[in-house]
Amino acid sequence: MTAPTASQQIACFSTGFRPQSLSDQALDTVRRVCLDTIGVAVGGMNEPATILARDYAFGHSGPLNGTLWTTGQAMPVELAAFVNAIAGHVLDYDDVVVTMRGHPSVALLPPILALAEARNVSFEVLAAAYSVGLEVACKLGRAFAIDHYKRGWHATSSIGVIAATAGCSTLLGLDEEQTVHAVGLAVAQASGLHENFGTMAKSFQPGHCAAAAVRSVLLAQRGFTAAATALDGRAGYAKLYAEGADLSEQLSRLGDFPLEIEAGGVDIKQYPMCGGAHRALDGILDLRVEHGLVLDQVADIVVSGSNGGFTPLIHDRPVTGLTAKFSMQYGMAAALADGQIALSSFTDDMVMRPEIQAFFPHVSKVEAEGTLFPRWVNLDLRLKDGRRLEKRVTSLRGSAQMPLTDAALTAKIIDCCAFSGAGIDGACLAETLLSAQRTEAVGPLLARALGWPAATNGAEP
Amino acid sequence: MTAPTASQQIACFSTGFRPQSLSDQALDTVRRVCLDTIGVAVGGMNEPATILARDYAFGHSGPLNGTLWTTGQAMPVELAAFVNAIAGHVLDYDDVVVTMRGHPSVALLPPILALAEARNVSFEVLAAAYSVGLEVACKLGRAFAIDHYKRGWHATSSIGVIAATAGCSTLLGLDEEQTVHAVGLAVAQASGLHENFGTMAKSFQPGHCAAAAVRSVLLAQRGFTAAATALDGRAGYAKLYAEGADLSEQLSRLGDFPLEIEAGGVDIKQYPMCGGAHRALDGILDLRVEHGLVLDQVADIVVSGSNGGFTPLIHDRPVTGLTAKFSMQYGMAAALADGQIALSSFTDDMVMRPEIQAFFPHVSKVEAEGTLFPRWVNLDLRLKDGRRLEKRVTSLRGSAQMPLTDAALTAKIIDCCAFSGAGIDGACLAETLLSAQRTEAVGPLLARALGWPAATNGAEP
Repeated sequence: MTAPTASQQIACFSTGFRPQSLSDQALDTVRRVCLDTIGVAVGGMNEPATILARDYAFGHSGPLNGTLWTTGQAMPVELAAFVNAIAGHVLDYDDVVVTMRGHPSVALLPPILALAEARNVSFEVLAAAYSVGLEVACKLGRAFAIDHYKRGWHATSSIGVIAATAGCSTLLGLDEEQTVHAVGLAVAQASGLHENFGTMAKSFQPGHCAAAAVRSVLLAQRGFTAAATALDGRAGYAKLYAEGADLSEQLSRLGDFPLEIEAGGVDIKQYPMCGGAHRALDGILDLRVEHGLVLDQVADIVVSGSNGGFTPLIHDRPVTGLTAKFSMQYGMAAALADGQIALSSFTDDMVMRPEIQAFFPHVSKVEAEGTLFPRWVNLDLRLKDGRRLEKRVTSLRGSAQMPLTDAALTAKIIDCCAFSGAGIDGACLAETLLSAQRTEAVGPLLARALGWPAATNGAEP
Repeated sequence: MTAPTASQQIACFSTGFRPQSLSDQALDTVRRVCLDTIGVAVGGMNEPATILARDYAFGHSGPLNGTLWTTGQAMPVELAAFVNAIAGHVLDYDDVVVTMRGHPSVALLPPILALAEARNVSFEVLAAAYSVGLEVACKLGRAFAIDHYKRGWHATSSIGVIAATAGCSTLLGLDEEQTVHAVGLAVAQASGLHENFGTMAKSFQPGHCAAAAVRSVLLAQRGFTAAATALDGRAGYAKLYAEGADLSEQLSRLGDFPLEIEAGGVDIKQYPMCGGAHRALDGILDLRVEHGLVLDQVADIVVSGSNGGFTPLIHDRPVTGLTAKFSMQYGMAAALADGQIALSSFTDDMVMRPEIQAFFPHVSKVEAEGTLFPRWVNLDLRLKDGRRLEKRVTSLRGSAQMPLTDAALTAKIIDCCAFSGAGIDGACLAETLLSAQRTEAVGPLLARALGWPAATNGAEP
């Protein structure tokens, strides 16, 4: 029997707690704190912070100006961002930027698109907001993301919330002071960590980040304040989340040409699992074709790679689809067995196949000394007949340096639409978005791309 | 000219960014990431995480089962918790527990009361939920709060979110597994830091915490998952927020008698400003009466105290009411000038009085070596006529060890109600809550206490 986790200890206590066991003294304390807390809140009712939060909450629970991408259902903007981000991250198939050590688009686009739709801005304005968000994500990332991520922060969410808030500020046309406050509110909500990888909370974290960004900009737009030093003050974000990293040099380069969106671009994923396994997947799939390998021929595999490259691959013995997405062992085994890593690879049944489970102990991964960049992976296979095969992979298929063709991207999207069974036309989605024009309004564009009825979006907030 | 803060650098960039400057290449990247992200989200639409989040969001934007304490307006439960917590913390007049280095009730009660009202549970069940939350807050606090707070975390929010989630789990009757997942979702949203003290974001942080707790339990109740090791795993909360503190020993004592609510109780605030100044306020007000002092007689004051006791007092030269709440200098000056520290002390005009501003340089504060506990403060006054006055303060008025009488607490609440101008009858509020019975339903109790029309609350969710 393993010792209970801290969460389990709390749960054990909490679920076993009997109200009847409370003493009269305890009840009396509760009466008093109820009274004191409510009374003090009544006292605070007309403070600016309360008025702004109340106005925001009414707005938030009111007009349904956001739309769920997947169903076309109308929702408050913040909740649309929340749900779209979870949907966008749960497959671990969404894009990546190595500089931020995270997934930029799932942090940026759900809030930006929801606000763009609600305000019905042009595609160009949306693109500006995205570019600003990516610029902030990458500059912050360059300042501290490698160590931050390695310590266990989920940078997609913990850096993404600041980047998304900057992008949303651009989209709404917040002024400089409002933007400063919005960023401070984003800092107030920055979170997300690796320990939740392999559970639904992995995708919840960008969902939280996306909703938090909307909340931050809508409150700042109404006049809500935060500290201008929230990022780099003596008890600010850099100190608590980034070991006191200096942000100023990187942030002084924000907007230098070429922009991050132009210089580095974004890596689009070929495989619906953690990016830390992708170079190894490119390599093993190539070896499989080159040598006509099948799983049963392979005795063992050593995957070595640059320092920190395997950090998120925390599940060596996965038993579910979600944990398998963070398992080098599963990636290697399934690639050899099936000749592909596809959406269909991540059902619990596929993960629990006996021959796959039996292979896990034969895969080991080793991180080299040194730095993460330039990234590389080396595969060293020992076959049962005594042969050894090696393959070194540096460039990554689908990355900005070796991009997917439009046709390959369209094929991926068609596969996603088919997988969902939603009846969304992937080819139409691809064609519409790939041909979006600068001045085109985002609301109708999304409606056309996803086949929503026109009435459900584009309304003024 | 001071160098711009990181937030200002971002704001400067973001607000100055021109969409027209984007290259066609950048626009094309945006098209591609829009497509890829939405397409992937479509792929994820029928994953359990997405379905649960969507159902939650519809519920969340739907029934208005929570009520704003201050106005009686109906709201979704999560937003009621959000707004009530901001209102409850903005005056910095809400209660404190030193063990957690934070304000327990403003983290716990807004979500617990909102859920209690929506489910119309008994006062006893509410009290159990509160006691569980306080128990978790104090046990986690004992494990790591002193260092955590000293590093800059806003424990009210960063510890409070876990405690509030535990309490809400009790209230909803979540089972053990659901509670584990709820705690993991709370960890995914844990945040809040000192740098935002003195701005509206200070009260926003418990607002976020309260809303996050509601979100965590409602999602976990529907089956949303998180890591059981979210608190104490290798990349979990204890590692990232608490320098790897061991939680197990303290958590093994959860629920030991006497409960924290019985043993330590809660310190109710006498003064509407940061608790770090309260012992010094007790002392200076006593000295003022004992010696008939006025501000103009005092040459300077040295306030010394135990190590870490002044951490949150980050504004030595405040110029607004909100920053003055975190200023020992303002506390000393205003106490000497006015003979009280009251809600009326914290207008910007009161803070900007020339004689008050002129006194700030004559107040210094010194933390001793050693430990925070037992807490003490020493005042050393030099008068202009050459006399010196000293006063040492250990016990704190209003604390559980030297509690306010019911009459004094009622007087505080009547003052809060009068300050707000809301027309809420403070005496009725006090009498109703202080006499709450075990089996009484919370919905009608709150309605009677605050004078809401009966129809606006107590509805089944």
